[in-house]
Amino acid sequence: MATAYFMQLLTQMSEARTDQEHMEIYMISKPSIPDRTNYILGKSVQSPLSEMIWTGKQLKQLGAGILAIPCITAHFFHDELQDEVGLPVMNAVEETAVCLWNRGIKHVGILATEGTIQSQIFQRVLEGYGISSEIPDKEMQQIITDMIYHDIKEGKTVDIERFGRVSAELNEKGAQVVILACTELSLIKKDFPIGTGYLDVMEVLAAKTVQKCGRLRAEYRKLITL
Amino acid sequence: MATAYFMQLLTQMSEARTDQEHMEIYMISKPSIPDRTNYILGKSVQSPLSEMIWTGKQLKQLGAGILAIPCITAHFFHDELQDEVGLPVMNAVEETAVCLWNRGIKHVGILATEGTIQSQIFQRVLEGYGISSEIPDKEMQQIITDMIYHDIKEGKTVDIERFGRVSAELNEKGAQVVILACTELSLIKKDFPIGTGYLDVMEVLAAKTVQKCGRLRAEYRKLITL
Repeated sequence: MATAYFMQLLTQMSEARTDQEHMEIYMISKPSIPDRTNYILGKSVQSPLSEMIWTGKQLKQLGAGILAIPCITAHFFHDELQDEVGLPVMNAVEETAVCLWNRGIKHVGILATEGTIQSQIFQRVLEGYGISSEIPDKEMQQIITDMIYHDIKEGKTVDIERFGRVSAELNEKGAQVVILACTELSLIKKDFPIGTGYLDVMEVLAAKTVQKCGRLRAEYRKLITL
Repeated sequence: MATAYFMQLLTQMSEARTDQEHMEIYMISKPSIPDRTNYILGKSVQSPLSEMIWTGKQLKQLGAGILAIPCITAHFFHDELQDEVGLPVMNAVEETAVCLWNRGIKHVGILATEGTIQSQIFQRVLEGYGISSEIPDKEMQQIITDMIYHDIKEGKTVDIERFGRVSAELNEKGAQVVILACTELSLIKKDFPIGTGYLDVMEVLAAKTVQKCGRLRAEYRKLITL
């Protein structure tokens, strides 16, 4: 569903008045690609990388000039993928850091899969921009993991109060902004009134992709809901 | 935007509990393909067919076993496309007729682009199932054309009262059900409370595609909102 929402964001963020003004999109959705988190955490030996490379190469052959991946955990493989496919791959992690840095944010909270959190892909990049980060404690992380893998991926409803509790904990630790660093969590922001104080990494990825390939509508230039 | 919504429908209609249970989707969105209605009405000599065939062949090469086109007007080229690509192409027009026939509907109204209306692709297929049809008069058709080409494709809001007036006119002429026979009109049903008495052709296309490639969730077996 994150892929469908990413397509929607690309379309609605594009400044276009006719079909013909929209950018060209080649999309391969291979849900059979092995779970990224399980591999990163060492729970599975099935790496998703080779299928990601195959997919990237197919898209290149179709004519794609830039790749974008609406799965943040998969960014763990960003550099290898880019090298192997030989096309620029949008970097949602880097773009998020730039976006926060531009707004003068110094301290954030991260909501993501365990794969993203444990591999420290966000923490390391953010540090490079002088931004420190908070992650949920073990019990709170379990709530987020359940929401991603049970509620959202299975198409169930989400207990928005529990979600708010985890965010609030990060704010109490000093986070000025909570980043939604998993595209499944972006679906929560889309479908529920979660309030302000968030930065949705998929929105950042979509806006930057539109900027590179087309024209971004003015109203999407600021993405942090403060 | 219709393509993004079609992707969303495929996902939400699929009976799946993990990413890995979803079907594989290859998608090419080429908004540069010449406008179908302009060609069908003779307002343009640029046929979209050759680019549609190219696109279909690319999808076949990627591994697609079935093609589905979330543009109803493009169904004008259905048979030629199927022959040239050499893959089965889902037929949203035929599937809609079957769906209406199964429910015992005898008389429908058609809301669509002028290309779809004038080429009689729906009227002819429906007749084969013993279903007669009503189309909007000239002035009412202009309202629908404006909604499709100006409001929806440009991402503007829709005057839902005017939309209701056109539907009501078809009901007054005897239509038991009004079919939304343009995927841009499906977006109106998605975003506005248009009430009951409609059959959304894109929903039919999505449900039938899921049935062929995966498992359809039980709640999507009945699509006419009577």
